[in-house]
Amino acid sequence: MDMDYMDRALELSRRGEGRVNPNPLVGAVIVKNGRIIGEGWHEYYGGPHAEVNAVRNAAEDVRGSTIYVTLEPCSHYGKTPPCAELLRAKGFGRVVVAMTDPNPLVAGKGIEILREAGIKVDVGLLEAKARKLNEIFIKYILTKQPFVIMKSAMTLDGKTATSGGESKWITGKESREYVHRIRNRVSGIMVGIGTLLSDDPSLTARTEDGCDPVRIIVDSRLRIPMDAKVLNSPGKTIIATTEDYDRRRYEELEELDSVEVLIAGKSGMGVDLKHLMSHLGAKGIDSVLLEGGSELNWSMVNEGLVDKVMTFIAPKILGGCESKTPVGGPGFPGLDDALVLQDIEVTRFGVDTLIEGYVRRGENDVHGTC
Amino acid sequence: MDMDYMDRALELSRRGEGRVNPNPLVGAVIVKNGRIIGEGWHEYYGGPHAEVNAVRNAAEDVRGSTIYVTLEPCSHYGKTPPCAELLRAKGFGRVVVAMTDPNPLVAGKGIEILREAGIKVDVGLLEAKARKLNEIFIKYILTKQPFVIMKSAMTLDGKTATSGGESKWITGKESREYVHRIRNRVSGIMVGIGTLLSDDPSLTARTEDGCDPVRIIVDSRLRIPMDAKVLNSPGKTIIATTEDYDRRRYEELEELDSVEVLIAGKSGMGVDLKHLMSHLGAKGIDSVLLEGGSELNWSMVNEGLVDKVMTFIAPKILGGCESKTPVGGPGFPGLDDALVLQDIEVTRFGVDTLIEGYVRRGENDVHGTC
Repeated sequence: MDMDYMDRALELSRRGEGRVNPNPLVGAVIVKNGRIIGEGWHEYYGGPHAEVNAVRNAAEDVRGSTIYVTLEPCSHYGKTPPCAELLRAKGFGRVVVAMTDPNPLVAGKGIEILREAGIKVDVGLLEAKARKLNEIFIKYILTKQPFVIMKSAMTLDGKTATSGGESKWITGKESREYVHRIRNRVSGIMVGIGTLLSDDPSLTARTEDGCDPVRIIVDSRLRIPMDAKVLNSPGKTIIATTEDYDRRRYEELEELDSVEVLIAGKSGMGVDLKHLMSHLGAKGIDSVLLEGGSELNWSMVNEGLVDKVMTFIAPKILGGCESKTPVGGPGFPGLDDALVLQDIEVTRFGVDTLIEGYVRRGENDVHGTC
Repeated sequence: MDMDYMDRALELSRRGEGRVNPNPLVGAVIVKNGRIIGEGWHEYYGGPHAEVNAVRNAAEDVRGSTIYVTLEPCSHYGKTPPCAELLRAKGFGRVVVAMTDPNPLVAGKGIEILREAGIKVDVGLLEAKARKLNEIFIKYILTKQPFVIMKSAMTLDGKTATSGGESKWITGKESREYVHRIRNRVSGIMVGIGTLLSDDPSLTARTEDGCDPVRIIVDSRLRIPMDAKVLNSPGKTIIATTEDYDRRRYEELEELDSVEVLIAGKSGMGVDLKHLMSHLGAKGIDSVLLEGGSELNWSMVNEGLVDKVMTFIAPKILGGCESKTPVGGPGFPGLDDALVLQDIEVTRFGVDTLIEGYVRRGENDVHGTC
């Protein structure tokens, strides 16, 4: 039963997807005498926490009841008063927590407050699921750097486009719809200028009532045309360039309210991507969906800036020794140098297959135990 | 219950894998009063049919019993007398058949004989499974051309080797063991001279008591070195070349008993692969595992000679805009020209994923209904 209630709390937490960043997704379920009497979730950035909403929505007095919450109740005064205090004051008998809060401001203090008040606290129920759900939050709260998902769509022979550059569409409708759901969950979508020039994407989430993420264009010389779709559709755009930028284009772009031009340092031939990531993190962008092309993907992989890889594979053979693949550049010299992914998940989307995995890390491994 | 018995018969049929080619895999189960009283399968090429073995192994009189057989009992005098006659003579009460025999010499005549003798015959139980199991036989009996499986191993960014050419090993132990099981099931393994020169593979099945398939090397100018492993390990090798072959190497190869040099026609710059396939078919080679490299794969795909694609995908990122991918060549010009696969299956092997599918065909579609 405990597991069912926590599963329900996790399900509720997802309702905040795309609305709470860079805060965590949190859900809460209040149970009394074997019945759910209240439910809540963190609905939007800066809004009341899940526990507060669940207590507010409770159909009867919560005294003596159990609350299932997907993240440790907070202990600090942030945008709202601490939830641990609220649960104590309301007289909850038991608190079940999926995972402790990695936020250094909390990190076990919420649980301490509850235990000191004599409340029974159980920690770790469905923890792996909770950590996965908040993989973006965990990375961001610990590093202030965005969680980067490199997403590609390729054929069963590894091609992202024909030899002539045609790439619409490699994968089917179901895969593309899922990509739009992912876009709706992240704070930023990033592409290189090559992809922008060849595909002229609008880079919007295109899901009903979703918030469009910030578009991030890596364009070391400001080659972006003023009629590019990203400059002429709703939503903000950050263009990262270097000191080699085109002065006239810079002036034209500066006149657009929706555009920010970041003059980042140079790294090799292009934009200093580590600088860019820190800049995005400082602006509260907790997550970036990297959508290519293959040269930018290589630079991000090679700089160690990718956290998760999602590759959609269509059951087609295109051929072409010069056709583009998901990751280009010079490549790693030996097989032992390859970027190894872990926690692999395989999902079918219509005839396509999504393979996803996480880049192995040391300290910041969001999938380890606390 | 019918289904359980047929499943058992299909399971038994697999015991002939790699031993019956170019004959079909067949299993048979005899059931009387709700108990299995006899089992048999087609054990080796030219040996007794499954029905004969099951009758021989029967623990009691088969009169009035039911026999479950994965393929329609034969009606013609081949290497053994017709099984349909045997079943009639033995007084079976009912015959359950998974699929009719696509062999034009049988094609329903076996079932006719049984029905005319007043025996109840049910056809089509677990037919899809039976057809898949005999996909090699079905193609070969109808076309006299080998069933070609293009097998690749690539990273999650589509690479079969590093930019420096290192390819040992892209995939893990579980995948490679499964490849050896597939090698054990086919009659031939084919590679291009480029792969032979760079990897010097031995191309054996390497499974316990498996029969090593014939090695087929596509080598338009006979560049194969005399110390190549395929020339110096047990098993037969067919080398397909063109009139551009190196005369001296030809003479050296002619002295090896285990080697056959086929001077095929020319198609473009290389060996006429259609000619080669017909030659292999005429020699009784019903199946070929195509293991690259990317240029030979492209030629086979482009000539419409591939029936099935199996791609093993390792959860690694290698990068490299010049690294090899499974299929090279000029590639198909547009996305609409891509080779589309159907009946996709996805299987995990350790951390790797195998995606397999069939090339869509018109008439010879082995997965349609009879």
